[in-house]
Amino acid sequence: MDQTEKQMEFRKVIARINQGKNILLIAHKKPDGDVLGSVCAMDHVLKRVNKKHQAACVDKPPHNLEFLNCADKFIHEFDHNDYDLVITLDCGADYMTGYNEKYADLFKENKHKIINIDHHPSNEKFGGINIVDWTSASTTMIILEFLEFAKFKIDPIIATSLLTGIYTDTGSFMHSNTNSKVYKAASKLLSYGAQLSIIVKYAFKSMPVNTLQLWGRVLNTLKINNEGIAMGVATKQDFDETGTKSEHLTGLIDLLNSIPDTKFAVLLNEDEKGNVKGSFRTQSDNINLSDIASVFGGGGHKKAAGFSIPGHLEKEVRWKVVEEQ
Amino acid sequence: MDQTEKQMEFRKVIARINQGKNILLIAHKKPDGDVLGSVCAMDHVLKRVNKKHQAACVDKPPHNLEFLNCADKFIHEFDHNDYDLVITLDCGADYMTGYNEKYADLFKENKHKIINIDHHPSNEKFGGINIVDWTSASTTMIILEFLEFAKFKIDPIIATSLLTGIYTDTGSFMHSNTNSKVYKAASKLLSYGAQLSIIVKYAFKSMPVNTLQLWGRVLNTLKINNEGIAMGVATKQDFDETGTKSEHLTGLIDLLNSIPDTKFAVLLNEDEKGNVKGSFRTQSDNINLSDIASVFGGGGHKKAAGFSIPGHLEKEVRWKVVEEQ
Repeated sequence: MDQTEKQMEFRKVIARINQGKNILLIAHKKPDGDVLGSVCAMDHVLKRVNKKHQAACVDKPPHNLEFLNCADKFIHEFDHNDYDLVITLDCGADYMTGYNEKYADLFKENKHKIINIDHHPSNEKFGGINIVDWTSASTTMIILEFLEFAKFKIDPIIATSLLTGIYTDTGSFMHSNTNSKVYKAASKLLSYGAQLSIIVKYAFKSMPVNTLQLWGRVLNTLKINNEGIAMGVATKQDFDETGTKSEHLTGLIDLLNSIPDTKFAVLLNEDEKGNVKGSFRTQSDNINLSDIASVFGGGGHKKAAGFSIPGHLEKEVRWKVVEEQ
Repeated sequence: MDQTEKQMEFRKVIARINQGKNILLIAHKKPDGDVLGSVCAMDHVLKRVNKKHQAACVDKPPHNLEFLNCADKFIHEFDHNDYDLVITLDCGADYMTGYNEKYADLFKENKHKIINIDHHPSNEKFGGINIVDWTSASTTMIILEFLEFAKFKIDPIIATSLLTGIYTDTGSFMHSNTNSKVYKAASKLLSYGAQLSIIVKYAFKSMPVNTLQLWGRVLNTLKINNEGIAMGVATKQDFDETGTKSEHLTGLIDLLNSIPDTKFAVLLNEDEKGNVKGSFRTQSDNINLSDIASVFGGGGHKKAAGFSIPGHLEKEVRWKVVEEQ
């Protein structure tokens, strides 16, 4: 969407918020820094303009993001008839909310009530108003633009929430979505009082001891095969003995993908439900991991893809996936 | 130094460079991203203004910074009488150059030839001109300011060099020196064509497989004792079996220090020369690690300290240091 179009939609959002009597903010399932930053910023904005509102998410925020202002205030269930305006944040499709089946009528007959703000290129524009800017590095970047457009004074709480989204969605300014606009936004947010040290301490520099022990086990399995593929493995036993879950592997695949001169990296793990999950990452421009993941019924992007199938892992000469019959 | 004072010194530097017939740039020993970024930027500037010049460093640049334009052009020895101007970059004291004893007369009788550009608060102002701004997050930030003051057109090569210094000295915008100015600078440098993806790929996302295997072994030894101290251990056997050296532990102590609710983190390792090295890090403001390291004859700062003593490690109920008699 171009700038003029976006500003027209921003105007509509302002009008809708002004009219709103009771507003629901929805975060996507398995919430990350960008969605929580977006919701917490909007939660604080609505609080400051004295609008009755609530934030909802099917899942709890992860521990390392509990420092965010609204993180402990999420509701998990609701009656959407109580709300005359629903704003979904960072949700690429209705199923990402986790509420699409339970509250199917919200996403069908009542979709006009929904404002959908997101930066995913694949966004399905399921709302009545859809502000989808895939050139934005994060949804919090769009919220920042919106608040500046609305001439809303950005205080330290909002600034910290928005910067959290930028930090986490750009991987501390290391992912390829980091551009000049991103740095300009970060510079502004610091000058508005964003608390960088808190974001870094909790969102990045916080690794529980059992997560590190799990990572140690996986790194001990690390092999590079003849085809130049780096592979690490986490079995159910590894999770059980370290008291961890598959979510504690987050970030480890990027470490495997940092090995120079490899084609791509694979991380295989058994989860609690009897599935084998695979994550693929590459630094190469000439490999399509989406194709490779599709062999196992998965999918994704060229440089990052994955799959999940029922089964378990058996140790052979190397690790392979054994499908459950 | 205040802004006016700095600009006066910048004017002197421009004059000296204009007069210079043959200019020597000196990087500090064990060069890092900030000093290499500074030297490579200045090397390219001098090349563009057709000044005869050379860059020197006692040590070779590390592999992961070889992508920088001038990294393969460093000389290690020189006759300083060949040069009428010497610019030291990112050197807090003359001994940091590694040339202070060999070319003692340069740093004594000929110190007027030296322009000392640096951001370390401890800088000893050993030059004829000293541009020392400890409010700058990196020396490359000062070079950027200088080039902007001189109205010098910043091309992608210079921009990439300068951004490398900012990235590495702020730890990808995670250290406490990250401020609004830093982001503004990064934003500009990207708009000047800095190649972010190359910096990230080489300077950050480059972990050899045997380094990761070593890290896996250390993380497998990870324990938190009753006093809340997180400890990891690397033995000579770990280095031998993974084909690594103690330098491959760089960064791992920060991971140990990321464990929440611990007092501090300790990483012990045996090195090739029969020493036991200890590194200490804390996130706490109430602990003085310098004191703790001094018990073992070491030292450092409150939040980061270390020691090295002859000896080896023996496994007991927990790891302890056994001093050689």
